[in-house]
Amino acid sequence: MSGFGFLKYFIPQDRKFFPLFDKAASNVHEGGKAIYALVTCQTPEERVHYLRLIEKIEHMGDEITHEIFKELGSNFITPFDREDIHRLVTAIDDIIDYIHGSSKRIELYKLTEFDSDIIKLAELIQQTTDELRRAVLELKNMKKMRDITASLVRINSIENHADDIFDHAVAGLFEKETNAVRIIMVKEILQGLETATDKCEDAANVIESIMIKMA
Amino acid sequence: MSGFGFLKYFIPQDRKFFPLFDKAASNVHEGGKAIYALVTCQTPEERVHYLRLIEKIEHMGDEITHEIFKELGSNFITPFDREDIHRLVTAIDDIIDYIHGSSKRIELYKLTEFDSDIIKLAELIQQTTDELRRAVLELKNMKKMRDITASLVRINSIENHADDIFDHAVAGLFEKETNAVRIIMVKEILQGLETATDKCEDAANVIESIMIKMA
Amino acid sequence: MSGFGFLKYFIPQDRKFFPLFDKAASNVHEGGKAIYALVTCQTPEERVHYLRLIEKIEHMGDEITHEIFKELGSNFITPFDREDIHRLVTAIDDIIDYIHGSSKRIELYKLTEFDSDIIKLAELIQQTTDELRRAVLELKNMKKMRDITASLVRINSIENHADDIFDHAVAGLFEKETNAVRIIMVKEILQGLETATDKCEDAANVIESIMIKMA
Repeated sequence: MSGFGFLKYFIPQDRKFFPLFDKAASNVHEGGKAIYALVTCQTPEERVHYLRLIEKIEHMGDEITHEIFKELGSNFITPFDREDIHRLVTAIDDIIDYIHGSSKRIELYKLTEFDSDIIKLAELIQQTTDELRRAVLELKNMKKMRDITASLVRINSIENHADDIFDHAVAGLFEKETNAVRIIMVKEILQGLETATDKCEDAANVIESIMIKMA
Repeated sequence: MSGFGFLKYFIPQDRKFFPLFDKAASNVHEGGKAIYALVTCQTPEERVHYLRLIEKIEHMGDEITHEIFKELGSNFITPFDREDIHRLVTAIDDIIDYIHGSSKRIELYKLTEFDSDIIKLAELIQQTTDELRRAVLELKNMKKMRDITASLVRINSIENHADDIFDHAVAGLFEKETNAVRIIMVKEILQGLETATDKCEDAANVIESIMIKMA
Repeated sequence: MSGFGFLKYFIPQDRKFFPLFDKAASNVHEGGKAIYALVTCQTPEERVHYLRLIEKIEHMGDEITHEIFKELGSNFITPFDREDIHRLVTAIDDIIDYIHGSSKRIELYKLTEFDSDIIKLAELIQQTTDELRRAVLELKNMKKMRDITASLVRINSIENHADDIFDHAVAGLFEKETNAVRIIMVKEILQGLETATDKCEDAANVIESIMIKMA
């Protein structure tokens, strides 16, 4: 019901929400790049650098989320349904939380060497957050619906890929790793990374439902 | 607000969505039957047959989901709120994903013998997807609200039962199984199956909220 | 869009929903107190008392949830969006489910001694459910938005704290505990408790989105 045509008129004029969405989407992609850098870096100095960087990105994410919620509270007109904005921002926040959670565990468990599955998952997070960033950037310009849809499709396919890697990695642990504690530990990291790609798919689903309403 | 009486007039005329809902609900029940068949079958040939069948059901589910989302994009009038359709279809898709995830793990971990808890959980999935199929079939005929409610109640009670079985199975593993790797592995399968019944309850909750809006 | 000013007129008059919300919120706080009592009690008699009490609280929660859904079905006018009521009640129900799930596992796994992390998490559940209870009680009186917001902020900060405790506890297990089965078991309890605080944050998020709509 809620103003299909009506929305179209308001979108180009919005000056408050889109810059904040862009900020949130760029920030989550910074997180994606940092987690990949963390698991592929070579020196202890770099390691500490990326661990701290991911913490900063997480704080920045919280601030952006807070700013958007404040705007939601003080603006009557919003470019999309208030609830969809809430859901999109929450999903983006969740992605960063899982990236940060994985990085925190890597530090706490003192893991310094990463096998190829963990590296591959981190690479997929870097890619999927890049697609999400693109999709969010184009939201202000609904003429590019085809580009947005292409990004959403890729986010979904990356999530499937991450799922497969996770399953094979765990099966590999069961087959080769004899130390049960090490299995639990590595599985925990794999799980955190894989869930980050799930949350990215959740964000893509919110964008999809925003597009459905505006169709 | 959104058209309580108004909806009632449109429901009987819908020719696009209900057949797709029926297809989705029948497909998820095929998945429920296949996972039970997988954990109770006797020969390696049957095993391979059901493993492949569940993959086909999962692909079919993706196609149906896609078709429904396409219809959502190109139809102004929908039998329920667009968001509820989105949520219902997503929940049904999730059930199949967890059935498929469990079957994939059974294959990857090379598990060929199943204790009674796994078999019982698979049987509950078969039952709960049958109830869901019935509830969805009756959605087009809101006169049968009592039947739908009865199915939703059973889905909830099956979920509680599955929860209990999961908890007791895990406690049993801790008590009797000395091989920690085996504990982690079996727990992973039990978890996948149990979550399938959770997702079925999620679908039931969406149906409940659709009924609340139409009451 | 849905009746901003309109809602304000109806809130004070509501006689059905608010008493039920209060009941639900008090009940979940009873659960929070009981789980903390369970992990800190000294005698086997007390232990059995709190295990049974948590079961009773869980049943009571189911009844209150059912009553609220029945009211939703038979009332045209509700103090908030029907969907938000549904989401809030579901989140409160989830908190109790995770408290009950943790208590059930403590019983099933025959755990009788608890290290400081488990006790701390249970204490946080007691605190966060108290904040939730306060926030829900004030919902009927939107003049106290500042108090509600303060509770929501504390719920969020407790959830962050619980997250940290969980991560450090698991890292500690990996470092000190050599028995892998014991690691899995304790991690399972820690997870259940930590998720209860997550669900409390979910409830807080629903309250936040109710407040955003009424702003």
